[in-house]
Amino acid sequence: MTIFGESHGPMVGISIDGCPAGLPLTEDDFTIDLERRKGGIQKGTTPRKEDDKPIFITGYFNGKTTGAPLTILFENKNTRSSDYEKIKSIPRPGHADFVAHEKFKGNEDYRGGGHFSGRLTVCLVAAGVIAKKILNLIPAPSSLERKPEGEVLIEAKIIEIGGEKDIETGLQKAIDAKDSVGGIIECTVKNLPVGLGEPFFDSVESVIGHAAFSIPAIKGIEFGAGFQGAKMFGSEHNDAIIDESGKTKTNYAGGVVGGITNGNDLVFRVVVKPTSSTPKEQESWNWESRQIEKFTVRGRHDLCIALRVPPVLEAVAAIALVDLMLLEQKIQRII
Amino acid sequence: MTIFGESHGPMVGISIDGCPAGLPLTEDDFTIDLERRKGGIQKGTTPRKEDDKPIFITGYFNGKTTGAPLTILFENKNTRSSDYEKIKSIPRPGHADFVAHEKFKGNEDYRGGGHFSGRLTVCLVAAGVIAKKILNLIPAPSSLERKPEGEVLIEAKIIEIGGEKDIETGLQKAIDAKDSVGGIIECTVKNLPVGLGEPFFDSVESVIGHAAFSIPAIKGIEFGAGFQGAKMFGSEHNDAIIDESGKTKTNYAGGVVGGITNGNDLVFRVVVKPTSSTPKEQESWNWESRQIEKFTVRGRHDLCIALRVPPVLEAVAAIALVDLMLLEQKIQRII
Amino acid sequence: MTIFGESHGPMVGISIDGCPAGLPLTEDDFTIDLERRKGGIQKGTTPRKEDDKPIFITGYFNGKTTGAPLTILFENKNTRSSDYEKIKSIPRPGHADFVAHEKFKGNEDYRGGGHFSGRLTVCLVAAGVIAKKILNLIPAPSSLERKPEGEVLIEAKIIEIGGEKDIETGLQKAIDAKDSVGGIIECTVKNLPVGLGEPFFDSVESVIGHAAFSIPAIKGIEFGAGFQGAKMFGSEHNDAIIDESGKTKTNYAGGVVGGITNGNDLVFRVVVKPTSSTPKEQESWNWESRQIEKFTVRGRHDLCIALRVPPVLEAVAAIALVDLMLLEQKIQRII
Amino acid sequence: MTIFGESHGPMVGISIDGCPAGLPLTEDDFTIDLERRKGGIQKGTTPRKEDDKPIFITGYFNGKTTGAPLTILFENKNTRSSDYEKIKSIPRPGHADFVAHEKFKGNEDYRGGGHFSGRLTVCLVAAGVIAKKILNLIPAPSSLERKPEGEVLIEAKIIEIGGEKDIETGLQKAIDAKDSVGGIIECTVKNLPVGLGEPFFDSVESVIGHAAFSIPAIKGIEFGAGFQGAKMFGSEHNDAIIDESGKTKTNYAGGVVGGITNGNDLVFRVVVKPTSSTPKEQESWNWESRQIEKFTVRGRHDLCIALRVPPVLEAVAAIALVDLMLLEQKIQRII
Repeated sequence: MTIFGESHGPMVGISIDGCPAGLPLTEDDFTIDLERRKGGIQKGTTPRKEDDKPIFITGYFNGKTTGAPLTILFENKNTRSSDYEKIKSIPRPGHADFVAHEKFKGNEDYRGGGHFSGRLTVCLVAAGVIAKKILNLIPAPSSLERKPEGEVLIEAKIIEIGGEKDIETGLQKAIDAKDSVGGIIECTVKNLPVGLGEPFFDSVESVIGHAAFSIPAIKGIEFGAGFQGAKMFGSEHNDAIIDESGKTKTNYAGGVVGGITNGNDLVFRVVVKPTSSTPKEQESWNWESRQIEKFTVRGRHDLCIALRVPPVLEAVAAIALVDLMLLEQKIQRII
Repeated sequence: MTIFGESHGPMVGISIDGCPAGLPLTEDDFTIDLERRKGGIQKGTTPRKEDDKPIFITGYFNGKTTGAPLTILFENKNTRSSDYEKIKSIPRPGHADFVAHEKFKGNEDYRGGGHFSGRLTVCLVAAGVIAKKILNLIPAPSSLERKPEGEVLIEAKIIEIGGEKDIETGLQKAIDAKDSVGGIIECTVKNLPVGLGEPFFDSVESVIGHAAFSIPAIKGIEFGAGFQGAKMFGSEHNDAIIDESGKTKTNYAGGVVGGITNGNDLVFRVVVKPTSSTPKEQESWNWESRQIEKFTVRGRHDLCIALRVPPVLEAVAAIALVDLMLLEQKIQRII
Repeated sequence: MTIFGESHGPMVGISIDGCPAGLPLTEDDFTIDLERRKGGIQKGTTPRKEDDKPIFITGYFNGKTTGAPLTILFENKNTRSSDYEKIKSIPRPGHADFVAHEKFKGNEDYRGGGHFSGRLTVCLVAAGVIAKKILNLIPAPSSLERKPEGEVLIEAKIIEIGGEKDIETGLQKAIDAKDSVGGIIECTVKNLPVGLGEPFFDSVESVIGHAAFSIPAIKGIEFGAGFQGAKMFGSEHNDAIIDESGKTKTNYAGGVVGGITNGNDLVFRVVVKPTSSTPKEQESWNWESRQIEKFTVRGRHDLCIALRVPPVLEAVAAIALVDLMLLEQKIQRII
Repeated sequence: MTIFGESHGPMVGISIDGCPAGLPLTEDDFTIDLERRKGGIQKGTTPRKEDDKPIFITGYFNGKTTGAPLTILFENKNTRSSDYEKIKSIPRPGHADFVAHEKFKGNEDYRGGGHFSGRLTVCLVAAGVIAKKILNLIPAPSSLERKPEGEVLIEAKIIEIGGEKDIETGLQKAIDAKDSVGGIIECTVKNLPVGLGEPFFDSVESVIGHAAFSIPAIKGIEFGAGFQGAKMFGSEHNDAIIDESGKTKTNYAGGVVGGITNGNDLVFRVVVKPTSSTPKEQESWNWESRQIEKFTVRGRHDLCIALRVPPVLEAVAAIALVDLMLLEQKIQRII
């Protein structure tokens, strides 16, 4: 899976190698998740509008995947690069401007964050739509005598915005303060089989964590009781196994023990930092004047990027789980 | 890098391919970190004693690495498998017994957690000793005009045990309650260059997070302000850049912006769950009687495994950072 | 590096991740190699014409690479899919029709060979242009005290067509016989440093061989004396080392000993089978009539595809060598 | 899969991650292939004797694999390093002495070729024994309606020694000339399903070729008609498909079309160069005297290493095919 593109280039895209042949795909399959991700619907999200229509250019024939690399493009139409020219000499705090400039030695496309833009999450969401489809097609590994009932369901939802459990309140806080806020997203995956994940380097937490930190602005992840678990006794935190299927009385482990799924709900939370582009005046180093200067970010931005993260988090979780399921199927189903 | 072995097998080991030739290594290089990891010194750690002497079997000649795969073995001498036979029919809550049994269809080595044992972290620590050495030998990528001063320093320390900032107090809580406790470890890395990490799939957070979740019992990781950042405004959380080197006034980002190191201290925290093997009586499903039963874990265990995690966390951080530095050097230093 | 596309889809393309930032690129850089690969110039090649203009859609800004994934598209304009509809029910011998149909369960894009088309080698050639540029920018590994003089030069040329050393003669043979022919291509790489390649799994022969067999129609590869070496005595085949730089009196090893470059010219040959699409009448199974039938391949094809292989072989060799050089630089230059 | 060790170190070994749990293994399973590989039986092979007893140190419990990394060691008992001290200052022509010295900057274990020794092929053979077992346990991909009948059978045999089809004659030639000779090995794999291999970068030829070139002394590989195919017309070389299962009248493709298996026998040949250690006097550069010198190789060596290659070639083919079968099963069997 390769994603490519920049915020203000002609298009962004994704190429997926290893997608099975014969998977039916239509533009409509992408609508719900792409809409959930899109700005401009809720208050607090950017007024930049893109119609986000997936264009299948390769690996797609007669309405289905062919088995060859599947490439999907999204055009960037609604770009206003002039907003960015003005502040080119000031690396915006909290943004990748400074590190991109150093890493790529001044060759980066600086417009709208370039390749570091949240714009590319449209590609992740598209891949996630496909991953969710595949996830429910993979036969449960044969190692599993007691199969999960029902489909694998992935649901991410916002559980805190700007420090408030009530999301409207948290958002209003940002609007009132003319500032941006962050939030916490919780993701639950139901009906996973027991046995996904590998000991040590590819634990479920490693693989899901790796994927989740691919999403811009995510600064932490915890499974089950997470950081609160540090305040518990072992006798409390241990989830008693209560039947043959591995069902547990509690789920402080978040569905993962020893790095392996235990058949209970997989539960994890991520923290999304406050949107870096705040309307407030800020200070930063100016590369031209070579001094600290005050400035205000222009461009069109979200007051709370966390609002748009749930479908992206579901997408990367689905992608990671497809990998883990295929790996498990591959290794363990053969004997 | 491959680690192999079981808690109660004859030995555990690690083979490292791609280690540069000519790196001087002696047994003594490993002493400090292996001692820090070892049980039996502090109250709260297991009475199982292993002398943990690294045995170089391949890739080592005349006191130096040869450039061929470097393999290090550690013997398991102090095993008491009989402790584990008794409870073979009861998968211990919080342990990998149940998932290993399902995943490996009853073929797992169940003694002492088998491959899922903390015993294998001795291999991670050994690899970390080598990684720390290599880290300071890699020339800073040429992209970096303003090089960091001084050596890369990695230091992990316990900042909370059993919910207490005072570690002794937290540990006493466990002893008094005859129960096990968890903790929080903070790791700081100084003098990293700007520019490590790749946008999207190999962000610094992705790579470090992946590595950290390889350590048994870790259930969460956060960078910089982490989960607390969700309660901040953007104008607070954004770290103002105050000079040409990218130094920031605050460090809520934990030294990573856009998935790339920004030259400030890399700071992250992990949560270690309470040791699964608590002295308290517990309940679990009995595979033979096919009912829920009470039982007490035997074997020799740590009241607080978190005490032993700091050198392991430093080790996996060093390994991850070597990979990121070599990748950056490889890609970006050539033009 | 991901290549995607089909013979008769809207476009084919390539996305290259890990390309260094700041590499100047223009359309003109691609002209020579793309022209060498193109059909329609020499007798014996297909009359299908494509203008093969590279379109940089991502990772490219102000005439240079940005360091983000570089994506290049080529439009397919000159397609005549109707040629292929007629023979859809007959898998052409020597072509991938049958295996693609089985592997992808009937979902393959069958027009013009779909993803299995030589059309995609335009993407390999484009990547090769970039690889050749990078190859000469990589500093020689520091392990090398005696550096090669001059630029790395890769040259592939046809040494045999239709069993004839004189190429015109071989081609005329095909025209006279109204049949297709194959050939042998020899590739020489000058000025490589000593030390590329890894013992065992990533030997130079392994990596170059892997890459070369990515080119459709290649059925064999040999290094140095190759298959003729089986008829030699050891005392003949061994290349005597005659100076400190490792120069050898003969070069039966083809510049690789123990899987590692020895600083002499890297020399290898590949065999290109006769073009599968011969004008001659052939027999194959008909999926619809379920019997063996006679048929004649239509569509526009090369009498000798080998004529177009040299720039493609240079390209994959350059790509493989960049990987080996970066790997060597990464691992061995640090001490 | 990692192999490690040196010719004259204490042991060589292999660690295999991803081996399925529950595979029964005994020392006896390895006997036949290890004996076939061993020196000292036929005239023409080294008098060095090793008992080559596999020692399972991890991932093995109660006679079966556990699913955790499987590590197997072989002790080196019969070493005579003193033979090598004498010629330390002369890099032997045809050997890796010179390139290893450059690549590893003088840190290589030079005794008996160190890591570059054929001694490590004992590890490949051990892995091959396991791969052959697994190969017959993998269910045929569901894509395949017409399954192959019978077990996957891999057989490699010598078809030419010292330029002679009669092997005894070829060997006698070497003995008479007091020189070493090479040979050609042909490997046939029966009963493979249609559909293994991926278009472009992981064609069957790419993957098998990559693996085969991991074996020391192999300098070429060809599939089906191979280099002879360059002299054929397309109408001859194309294998007519004669039934629904894809059976072909001839097999000039060697069972691979478009990089994908077509269900016919997979046939390939490799060339093994003459053993580098010939009893004849040779010339090479002397690092100490800094001039060309005459010398004679000591140590115990094979007159014709090709005699020992068949089980090694079968082993790497089996390993490569397991990878391809698992990949195909993983990707394509899910819809």
